[in-house]
Amino acid sequence: LQSKLPDVGVSIFTQMTQLAQETGAINLAQGFPDYDPPQALLAALARHALTPGHHQYAPMPGLPRLREAIAAQVARLHSDAPAPDPATEVTLAAGATEALYSVLAAVVRPGDEVLVFEPAYDLYGPAIRLQGGVPRYVRLPAPHFRPDWDAVRRVVSPRTRLVLMNTPHNPSGAVFTADDWHELARLLDGTDALVLSDEVYEHFVFDGAPRMSARQHPALRERSFVLSSFGKTYHATGWKVGYCVAPPALTAELRRVHQFVTFAVNTPTQHALADALEQDPTDAHARGLASFYQAKRDEFRALLDGAGYELLPVPGGYFQLARYNALSSASDLEFAQYLAREKGVAVVPVSAFYHDGFDEGLVRFCFAKESATLQAAATRLRG
Amino acid sequence: LQSKLPDVGVSIFTQMTQLAQETGAINLAQGFPDYDPPQALLAALARHALTPGHHQYAPMPGLPRLREAIAAQVARLHSDAPAPDPATEVTLAAGATEALYSVLAAVVRPGDEVLVFEPAYDLYGPAIRLQGGVPRYVRLPAPHFRPDWDAVRRVVSPRTRLVLMNTPHNPSGAVFTADDWHELARLLDGTDALVLSDEVYEHFVFDGAPRMSARQHPALRERSFVLSSFGKTYHATGWKVGYCVAPPALTAELRRVHQFVTFAVNTPTQHALADALEQDPTDAHARGLASFYQAKRDEFRALLDGAGYELLPVPGGYFQLARYNALSSASDLEFAQYLAREKGVAVVPVSAFYHDGFDEGLVRFCFAKESATLQAAATRLRG
Ligand SMILES: CSCCC(=O)C(=O)O
Ligand SMILES: CSCCC(=O)C(=O)O
Repeated sequence: LQSKLPDVGVSIFTQMTQLAQETGAINLAQGFPDYDPPQALLAALARHALTPGHHQYAPMPGLPRLREAIAAQVARLHSDAPAPDPATEVTLAAGATEALYSVLAAVVRPGDEVLVFEPAYDLYGPAIRLQGGVPRYVRLPAPHFRPDWDAVRRVVSPRTRLVLMNTPHNPSGAVFTADDWHELARLLDGTDALVLSDEVYEHFVFDGAPRMSARQHPALRERSFVLSSFGKTYHATGWKVGYCVAPPALTAELRRVHQFVTFAVNTPTQHALADALEQDPTDAHARGLASFYQAKRDEFRALLDGAGYELLPVPGGYFQLARYNALSSASDLEFAQYLAREKGVAVVPVSAFYHDGFDEGLVRFCFAKESATLQAAATRLRG
Repeated sequence: LQSKLPDVGVSIFTQMTQLAQETGAINLAQGFPDYDPPQALLAALARHALTPGHHQYAPMPGLPRLREAIAAQVARLHSDAPAPDPATEVTLAAGATEALYSVLAAVVRPGDEVLVFEPAYDLYGPAIRLQGGVPRYVRLPAPHFRPDWDAVRRVVSPRTRLVLMNTPHNPSGAVFTADDWHELARLLDGTDALVLSDEVYEHFVFDGAPRMSARQHPALRERSFVLSSFGKTYHATGWKVGYCVAPPALTAELRRVHQFVTFAVNTPTQHALADALEQDPTDAHARGLASFYQAKRDEFRALLDGAGYELLPVPGGYFQLARYNALSSASDLEFAQYLAREKGVAVVPVSAFYHDGFDEGLVRFCFAKESATLQAAATRLRG
């Protein structure tokens, strides 16, 4: 049996989580919180688990009440953009991962090029290649990881089917600005290229910086699939519920594929999330996430102060990149293995986010952890 | 935006469920029970919903305790086959649908042929075509829908990458026999073709007939992906948890793709299902399903006796095929629409299970319903 993805192994997140388990290292590698979703949300899930009639197939695009609640929230948060129509523009998926995969499967044909900024979340490249698509990589330069639009322009071609955006960006935390969106819109003007905007960390934007979705740019909105994730927003990465907001013509293509990839999403979980949104008409939970994660970022940076790392700026997301070259001349992967085995802290080597293994001496910490965890990790890293 | 699946619309199941909602028809179309999962399972889900630490990513292949419980059950039920290794041979997916899609994405390359028996579950063809694969259809003849192996032999070629089996078969209920598996094994001997065996109705085999999985045939086991579904087994189609059992080399390819399609499955739901399996070491629930559904089949057939339909034999599954030509010369789709609108009972036209719309005057009823529902439907159908 010849593999279709011979160069792809178990993902770096799974590898590092396994290494953490084997070594007893504190897991700051895979991105997930070590705290639970809000208690009211857990209670809602328990309630729906016990509700008769909530256990069969949800409608293929998602429960109507959840799509309506999502559309209403998106309308409140993107008050400068038209509200999405829950019937034709909102689709639930088995995590933003499934939404991303299904969008790629729906629009990328063999030979199509997809523009990907690197460092990049590990699934983008293989998921594009599985459609016969060709990832075209553009490197984001440290320490700010902002796109160089001249470099982007040189890579865009008539074969460019899709531009994959990710803001706040994993692993760097870079947040695209209105200028970036404007440049992208200019670049795509007159083409029929589409945009897949992975905005799963949308609420985690720090220091009062404006956050902006692809949906908020009128010329981009009509060509964009915009993804978000309840896993990130509600500290429930294990629930595997995400969604895509896109104009009706794009949503129709996504749904054609989604119905064959998973068909529908876990019904009781959708009900619980609908409760959470309906009971929070001012979006207090979502709006509170920026300061919640900014405090964690600041705490973690202070804890690492003077430990020998150069801490890169973190405008968003829940990851801290750190340059370790004052400590070691090892490769990113070797240094990550050393940290897990010798220091008892698991991290992700940033080279794993490059298709060619580009290595500039960076590791990624996830700071979505309780203070006690961050403190214990810092003590180990300093030890 | 040119569609990659221009001929695919909203699935017939979604269409008929919508028609049922619009018309107030009793929904015997889409396959799902109108009763709930066992109370103990619902209580387990509620308990895990409230359990701290059960809300982040499960391991990519599934929770170890659930994989172990599945492997132990499969070993008990297939006592003539070696027990599967939970570490390397069992993979959880977001429903058998995701498992099926991910297997196809993992092994089918552009130009590869996939043998599909028709009538066929609606996702097989499009999911194959999304990989660039070519479905090669072999028709199963009514009323028994058993494969004609000479016809199969004429379609198998060196380009055959995969044979898609489905037993008990949807929509016909046909159950493949040891002879069928033997014929298939002979046919594939010396080739490197694989088998994808969709066995989601595995426990619903009636009249004491032997049930047999692809795994139970030694020569097929090594080349087979075998799918099952907790949605079917536990009356929980909305939970969206299924799994694949396959030898290590095949499982490795499935997981390479699964990690990019959904990554992992809802964590609290996996815990609840693990509880259910662990607490039932004699498989009383699974073993009881045959008589449970046989009683429903017999009840429904008795209710329709003399109503003008020719009821086809139902050796397995939870669907009843009925020939309506004594009642109408309409097409299957027209007759299904007539039944929903004029009689108040939604069904699925069997022509929807053929890529070329082959129509021989059959509709499909789902009898996974409370007695009261079956009685009310029969009253309407007779009215
Ligand atoms: C699906 S595991 C990876 C989680 C994550 O988003 C990350 O660590 O970057
Ligand atoms: C995923 S909706 C279809 C349910 C089903 O298995 C059927 O009706 O055949």
